[in-house]
Amino acid sequence: MFDKNRLTKLREEMKKNGDKSYIILTGDPHSSEYVASKFIAERFYFSPFTGSDGSLVVTLDGAYLFTDGRYFIQAEKELADSSVTLMKMGTKGCPTIAEFIAQNDLYPTAGNLFYMPEGFYEGVAKNGIVNDRDYSYLVENKPELSKDKVFALDEKLFTLSFKEKVAKVASEIENKGADSIIITTLDDIAYILNWRGNDIECTPVFYSFLYINKNNEVHLFIDKDKLSDVDYSNIHVHEYDDVVDFIKEKTNEIILVDKTKINAKLYNLIAKPLNGKSPSYLMKAVKGPVEIENIKRIHELDGVAMLKFYDFLYTNLGKNLSEYEYAEELEKYRRQSKDCFELSFETIAAVGENAAQMHYGPTKDKSSIVTLNDNVLLVDSGGQYFGGTTDITRTFLLKEPDAELRRDYTLTLKSVINLTTSIFMDGCAGTAIDIKAREIMWRLGMDYKCGTGHGVGYILGVHEGPNGFRYKHVPERDDGSKLEPGMITTIEPGVYKASKYGIRIENELLTVPAFETEDGVFYKFETVTYCPIETKYLDLGLLSDDEISWINNYHQMVYEKLSKRIQGNERLLALLKMLTKAVER
Amino acid sequence: MFDKNRLTKLREEMKKNGDKSYIILTGDPHSSEYVASKFIAERFYFSPFTGSDGSLVVTLDGAYLFTDGRYFIQAEKELADSSVTLMKMGTKGCPTIAEFIAQNDLYPTAGNLFYMPEGFYEGVAKNGIVNDRDYSYLVENKPELSKDKVFALDEKLFTLSFKEKVAKVASEIENKGADSIIITTLDDIAYILNWRGNDIECTPVFYSFLYINKNNEVHLFIDKDKLSDVDYSNIHVHEYDDVVDFIKEKTNEIILVDKTKINAKLYNLIAKPLNGKSPSYLMKAVKGPVEIENIKRIHELDGVAMLKFYDFLYTNLGKNLSEYEYAEELEKYRRQSKDCFELSFETIAAVGENAAQMHYGPTKDKSSIVTLNDNVLLVDSGGQYFGGTTDITRTFLLKEPDAELRRDYTLTLKSVINLTTSIFMDGCAGTAIDIKAREIMWRLGMDYKCGTGHGVGYILGVHEGPNGFRYKHVPERDDGSKLEPGMITTIEPGVYKASKYGIRIENELLTVPAFETEDGVFYKFETVTYCPIETKYLDLGLLSDDEISWINNYHQMVYEKLSKRIQGNERLLALLKMLTKAVER
Repeated sequence: MFDKNRLTKLREEMKKNGDKSYIILTGDPHSSEYVASKFIAERFYFSPFTGSDGSLVVTLDGAYLFTDGRYFIQAEKELADSSVTLMKMGTKGCPTIAEFIAQNDLYPTAGNLFYMPEGFYEGVAKNGIVNDRDYSYLVENKPELSKDKVFALDEKLFTLSFKEKVAKVASEIENKGADSIIITTLDDIAYILNWRGNDIECTPVFYSFLYINKNNEVHLFIDKDKLSDVDYSNIHVHEYDDVVDFIKEKTNEIILVDKTKINAKLYNLIAKPLNGKSPSYLMKAVKGPVEIENIKRIHELDGVAMLKFYDFLYTNLGKNLSEYEYAEELEKYRRQSKDCFELSFETIAAVGENAAQMHYGPTKDKSSIVTLNDNVLLVDSGGQYFGGTTDITRTFLLKEPDAELRRDYTLTLKSVINLTTSIFMDGCAGTAIDIKAREIMWRLGMDYKCGTGHGVGYILGVHEGPNGFRYKHVPERDDGSKLEPGMITTIEPGVYKASKYGIRIENELLTVPAFETEDGVFYKFETVTYCPIETKYLDLGLLSDDEISWINNYHQMVYEKLSKRIQGNERLLALLKMLTKAVER
Repeated sequence: MFDKNRLTKLREEMKKNGDKSYIILTGDPHSSEYVASKFIAERFYFSPFTGSDGSLVVTLDGAYLFTDGRYFIQAEKELADSSVTLMKMGTKGCPTIAEFIAQNDLYPTAGNLFYMPEGFYEGVAKNGIVNDRDYSYLVENKPELSKDKVFALDEKLFTLSFKEKVAKVASEIENKGADSIIITTLDDIAYILNWRGNDIECTPVFYSFLYINKNNEVHLFIDKDKLSDVDYSNIHVHEYDDVVDFIKEKTNEIILVDKTKINAKLYNLIAKPLNGKSPSYLMKAVKGPVEIENIKRIHELDGVAMLKFYDFLYTNLGKNLSEYEYAEELEKYRRQSKDCFELSFETIAAVGENAAQMHYGPTKDKSSIVTLNDNVLLVDSGGQYFGGTTDITRTFLLKEPDAELRRDYTLTLKSVINLTTSIFMDGCAGTAIDIKAREIMWRLGMDYKCGTGHGVGYILGVHEGPNGFRYKHVPERDDGSKLEPGMITTIEPGVYKASKYGIRIENELLTVPAFETEDGVFYKFETVTYCPIETKYLDLGLLSDDEISWINNYHQMVYEKLSKRIQGNERLLALLKMLTKAVER
């Protein structure tokens, strides 16, 4: 329960130090997309808002919760009578935190610079003093970081060994004119070490910093207790917090650092920073032959789990189970494979109009019942496997659809096909290709308010840059980066109609060479998601012969991939056969 | 005739001043794409290379001509026995000028900083001293700038008056936090003043600088003798060279300046520069209702000229005229309209394999004969009218084509149609749409090595930013800028086969609103080029019904637009009717 006295106590401390405001961001020292609960606890303690994204600014006589449109309704409810004011980010007249502090003369302001991204810090610091302050000692029952051990993955799962990756990073930083690099992003660190951890839910990384110099010397900053199961004989290991003093002492080195991913405290200690992406950023995005082989293998396992889910859904639809129960069932099927060790994100199972909310997810306490009277069940899910990370969406049509739904479902599949079958030259970014999926919607005045797809990690984050499919160019997102063979990108167009339904169909695409001519090098996509797409209610009048052929070829591949994994299971084989049966006009 | 002693004399002067190298760029103080002959004379004098693009670096014992692949053959021939070394830019191992100077320790280097773009200067100056030096006094018979008068255009040709444009610029620079702006780009200056000039061939601008402050005060720096025909009562006029002292004295003003377009001399005099595009850059690109009405009107005039050319070509093909004679004939037809006062670029008329060279242009002295045995005649041309600037390409098939040519011609038209009929959301840049034209080629392993299209000025440059169609994102080109209603962009895909033929079909597209839904605002294109496209040899098997309808609708519009302008001319009317006849399977 939230207690207003917490803010009073905080303000007493602020007054002692002369801080006119205190900023509590939701974020970890590594600019991670998802964070451990430790890094959200302080905001939860000082305000009653429980949404996963938001920032709190506490002043000597007020408190302001900044969040975006996804959370307005929830925040209004939770903040009522709390004395905390809701700041609706992105609405007209709402300032950014930096503007708010400058406009209200809240300097000196304060915050934990170790948790504050350098980019955010620069915006606030340009107009006044920002004190490095941590009042989180006031927080009662603050969660600790996970004590789970780091684990080494089988080297057979990787094209490049740890040593080879270090050598490549070292040589590339030297080419860029740097002496060393400090890597702050957790997925890059896990990628280079070929280790994984359990510090953040669904993303198998571990809290640490990594330093590599041009002489292949590697220093890891981590809770040493976590390393009892791994061999770190070639690595200098330091305690996590020692990174601060270590960096401070490197006064003569040009250190390569990604300003968009480092926290303000560390950045401002670097005597000679050279701003730029870590070489591991692109290395990690381009999967090698061993990774690709494994990705295809575990997508077969994932497809079998999805097939079992098809079976369960078709059998139990009349039983009025909840979205949450369906999600749990699917998780169970994934975990039946010994290679699956976690989900890659919380399963979204959304019925009817719930599916129109892009960020909807059922919980044990709050979940709708799925009935025979509902129109759709959208299921977006994925697993972490020893061999890759999956992300797949299928939308199940629960009863005979009306003409509008039938059309929208067909158009969604048409979008998938149209982009998947692209041929494009070396040099194309996802922004050059996005329209292949989206224009089908645009012609009818529809648009899904999200990217068409994102990069996927390898036994890592389900979201990974720089590849992706979007139509607007945003420099900070690096989405001008070209698509390269070995990159994995989701394609997930959809139709979302408030108070009606949401439709999304999502596969993962591998970029592969198409051909080379005297005019240049051309690429195409290979679908590595192997799971039937419901065809029963397609409006074939909206599909060309080529599109129908694509569906049939895709389903033939799915049949070949999955049938060999369910030999002997006549029930599943029959279902697979039915679901992958060729479509005919 | 080139004389090696010129270099000897230059080196004597360099030695006196202690310059170890001297850089002669081809460019004017305004970063113009095309320049007056004055600004190319020094390079012509000190090296025998006559190509329009190239830079010369003279050292104490050598001379190095830097140019790109378009000119290698010509440069090798012209530089033979000249003691000038060819530096093949863009080939492996060839350094940039900045690298060349650094690698060979040619500092202190020298050059005329008033002619040197700031961006280039920064690259050279970061490794050593660059002296501001002008040895062009050694050049004999150096051309002067044109003495032609500046002329005011009828205010009826513009949506915004000079005063309104100044007010808009002044208010936008204030919004950006600047006190004033120095505008260096000649087309922006002509745009704001609603004046035109005759200092550069085919681009009706006049050499000048423009300064505007947030209080709407306007200062123009120009050869005052040019202003006798215009009313400049609201403008403070200074001599062109006085801009240097004027800027030097503005020590307390934050001056908005486009670093990519200013010369190094001026830039380094600005005490408080704020880097950014001039507001006029985007204002100029978005044509208003008056401009659009005029653009459509003069494209009808341009279409009539092209129709006359069709007639001439069909009548004279057997007479073995040269490309140059055809180009002259087309110019004559354009100038028959009293509204046409100049060409917008030198007409390209290229027969057969000449058409495969993208930068080919016939001259009086060097021009191929067009015969009945040739496959194609590609004609790319345009005019400057009181009411707009045109750019159009048609490729004429001179005899029954073989299957390959027929296919490539049909594919080129298909590319035009596919992009022209796009529907796209507000926020799309040309880079998001380019693939609609290009993928048709890519599927067959072909690619035209140029953009699909470029922005077009209004009674100004035939190339104008920021709009354009390209697939690679290049930040310096601003090609992430979104397409807006009122922008004019060419679409000009093609097929180029060395030693065979080149095909290009080019129209101009106006971005217009399509519709608005709850999902957002959508745009489409309207073709404003009105000229028949030869359909006789199309391979209809490669075209969809919708594409054939597009061709027929386009030709119906062309017929309506042009027929009203050639009433009474039965010969042209009959030709127009034939060329715009509906295509049927």
